[in-house]
Amino acid sequence: MSAVRPSPGSEGISAGPAQARPSRIFGQPLTVVNLGLESMAESLRQQQVTVIDVDWKPPAAGVRHLQVTRSGVEIDVANQTACDRIQQARPVLVGMGIARQVIPGMHDRMILHAGPPIAWERMCGPQRGAVMGALIYEGLAADEAAAERLAASGEIEFSPCHHHHTVGPMAGIVSPSMPVFILENKAFGNRAFATQNEGLGKVLRYGGMGEEVYRRLRWMQDELYPVLDRALQTLPDGIDIKSLIAQALHMGDEGHNRNRAGTSLFLRAIGPALARTCRDGDAQARVLEFINGNDHFFLNLSMPAGKAALEPAEGIAGCSLLTVMARNGTDFGIRLSCLPERWFTAPAGMVEGLYFPGFTAADANPDIGDSTITETAGYGGFAMAAAPAITQFVGGTPSLALDATLEMYEITFDEHDGFTIPALDFRGTPLGIDVRLVRETGILPRLNTGIAHREPGVGMVGAGILRAPQGCFDQAFDALAELC
Amino acid sequence: MSAVRPSPGSEGISAGPAQARPSRIFGQPLTVVNLGLESMAESLRQQQVTVIDVDWKPPAAGVRHLQVTRSGVEIDVANQTACDRIQQARPVLVGMGIARQVIPGMHDRMILHAGPPIAWERMCGPQRGAVMGALIYEGLAADEAAAERLAASGEIEFSPCHHHHTVGPMAGIVSPSMPVFILENKAFGNRAFATQNEGLGKVLRYGGMGEEVYRRLRWMQDELYPVLDRALQTLPDGIDIKSLIAQALHMGDEGHNRNRAGTSLFLRAIGPALARTCRDGDAQARVLEFINGNDHFFLNLSMPAGKAALEPAEGIAGCSLLTVMARNGTDFGIRLSCLPERWFTAPAGMVEGLYFPGFTAADANPDIGDSTITETAGYGGFAMAAAPAITQFVGGTPSLALDATLEMYEITFDEHDGFTIPALDFRGTPLGIDVRLVRETGILPRLNTGIAHREPGVGMVGAGILRAPQGCFDQAFDALAELC
Repeated sequence: MSAVRPSPGSEGISAGPAQARPSRIFGQPLTVVNLGLESMAESLRQQQVTVIDVDWKPPAAGVRHLQVTRSGVEIDVANQTACDRIQQARPVLVGMGIARQVIPGMHDRMILHAGPPIAWERMCGPQRGAVMGALIYEGLAADEAAAERLAASGEIEFSPCHHHHTVGPMAGIVSPSMPVFILENKAFGNRAFATQNEGLGKVLRYGGMGEEVYRRLRWMQDELYPVLDRALQTLPDGIDIKSLIAQALHMGDEGHNRNRAGTSLFLRAIGPALARTCRDGDAQARVLEFINGNDHFFLNLSMPAGKAALEPAEGIAGCSLLTVMARNGTDFGIRLSCLPERWFTAPAGMVEGLYFPGFTAADANPDIGDSTITETAGYGGFAMAAAPAITQFVGGTPSLALDATLEMYEITFDEHDGFTIPALDFRGTPLGIDVRLVRETGILPRLNTGIAHREPGVGMVGAGILRAPQGCFDQAFDALAELC
Repeated sequence: MSAVRPSPGSEGISAGPAQARPSRIFGQPLTVVNLGLESMAESLRQQQVTVIDVDWKPPAAGVRHLQVTRSGVEIDVANQTACDRIQQARPVLVGMGIARQVIPGMHDRMILHAGPPIAWERMCGPQRGAVMGALIYEGLAADEAAAERLAASGEIEFSPCHHHHTVGPMAGIVSPSMPVFILENKAFGNRAFATQNEGLGKVLRYGGMGEEVYRRLRWMQDELYPVLDRALQTLPDGIDIKSLIAQALHMGDEGHNRNRAGTSLFLRAIGPALARTCRDGDAQARVLEFINGNDHFFLNLSMPAGKAALEPAEGIAGCSLLTVMARNGTDFGIRLSCLPERWFTAPAGMVEGLYFPGFTAADANPDIGDSTITETAGYGGFAMAAAPAITQFVGGTPSLALDATLEMYEITFDEHDGFTIPALDFRGTPLGIDVRLVRETGILPRLNTGIAHREPGVGMVGAGILRAPQGCFDQAFDALAELC
């Protein structure tokens, strides 16, 4: 599939996606999105062309369009290689295991966290809360005060999930005893990991602490994990998570904050094996009820699927696409394919959202979590046009959901041939965030996310939408420019 | 919710739905659907209003707008009563049973069929095939020849499903031994019935005959039914099918030919009870695999939900809304609320569709089945805007799916407050087909449907879309006019 980029000479007045692709959208033969002068729109209207005006900010003046690196690599070629690898990926749930036993580099005194590297001292409230809760859950601390001392003592090694082929939603805490899903990218052989999703409300990943949180985590370790694991062991081909995401995008999910279809399809996929392997009907029923009660269960499969798909696209010389976007609640960090070891960071943004009763924006922590791996892999907030009902959870309107996807085509290099959006005539989702296009257009990636309380111990307070911060994209672009 | 009708004096140039409801649709502030003179569109375009031209046929000349019956009933008031009842309905799956034991009027020598009344001699191929297959399945005939003789002998009483609070997809054959779902409308106490869905391909309801068909039906009677029934018996509140339909409409289903989400949600709803009541893990697994392998399983729940919701709206004096649309593969029949005992019929139409490999339009039987109860109840083809991916099954394009719903607002009296379409800013689905509006606008109801082979014994050959035939609406309108 060819790259979608502004045509040469189109700076200033950039053609909208409907012009780049003349296919019919919602029964309308030709629609032009006008991003510039009103006189241009007038002229088109006089020719009876439907024109939609877009609130538009001109690109930074004098941005150089980077095409070839000093070592002679054509960036477009490198980017196509990356997008081809991402699209060829086939992430399959192949099993489960305990973090300390299966995650590379994990050890008994290590805690993984979401986002770019961060020391205990700079961690935000919910990430601290989740670390403290994990230390209590692990039996390494008796109470919150002891957990806080231990966390600050230097005896615990904190490491980003992303440094261990792992992704964690929100605080993203993975401690040694936690069960994790193991996804294997069957096309490339690499693996990715994520914990089981706890549900919403007062839960560890939102910084929740307390006996109800630990009791749930222990049940997830003692019953949920063995029941699911035994069933998975009888499925020689595993469960094809890429296929479930593709189907879910036709069923009103976008794979980040709406996973009702994905969760349903996962239950359908594992159901017969559960029935055959779980001889305790009550335990089986509790597992089904837990998953049925948590439409976000599939998030912890769609996230490692994105991670497994993106890792083969890391380290491609001259590639200007992002392979990671992740937040620790303090910093927002991105990584470029061509500079795979570097993090470019900027302060994490505030979320515009819907709040649970009793909470307001004053309670909100900044943007947090590794779940933006979904947008990086071509779904999540980038596929919101597939999920208009998500606006009941994250706010906004169905037209905003549509606009979000259409706008993201402006900063992506390709369209995903495996993930399509029925309402856009089965157009592929926007794939491959190109740091050049972000800089040239001034359009920042759109995200949707849950919102954690800013204090440790409270948990989830809402969900909403925002854009990635500009600073890290500017740094990444400058680093790329130095190579050109 | 107020009625949606052309405003007075708007005949000739009728305002489109976007003008009737100025809410934003897909990010476009104001869109006018022009159904008339090109000069009108020109004038609007000069005012920078987006105009979409619609292929439009002027209404029959001199149609009288019926408002009050001779006995003094205001038709709009009667219609609102009907729509209120339909919206207040709460169809719940409360149990299962064997047709002869639970369907009122059913007896050992009765066969129920889809559509309006019809004698054996006039039945189409697939309906004959399904009758013959049912007689063999019942043990009343040893082979197809014997079944054909018995069917023609007069010893079997044929009766429309609709005369027994029952709905049957395609041929719609219900024989005495078949297990049926029992839905109760908790708001009004009435019940409706439907068999379990067999899946696609060579199946009885598409006229399929042969050992594979009977073996499947026997397994559905001997294992599927008892396993589901036992689980349902442990759910004191049953399963709220209205709620599942409402959710499925937010997940890319329309409840007629796309039921992947509904089937998924049904499995989620019954899963824990299955786990607790089915001690034979292999039997439970076979049940889950059968349902998981048939995304149309939920159709046989969405159909009786529609029937249960519509029956309380039957028999309202002066009500010009349809309470039944049904086809037997020979005739298309409709019933009006105010004349509940009468069928108005016209020849069943041919379907424009997608065919399975090896089949063409020459193999197709005319339109058949009771499944148009879904359109009558405000979903199915009327909610296709919620289900753009259905076009992969029935043909057409996502824009056609959107247009289908928007057009149906022109001939419906109300919008369903319980069934909403996210992509239309959560607008309610078009509800209450008004025979007056059909006559005045010349717009016939749009349907989507499976396609049966025209010969007995073959089965399904495709799926497609069509409109209801005009003749029955003309007759119904004339009958209503006689009352006014």
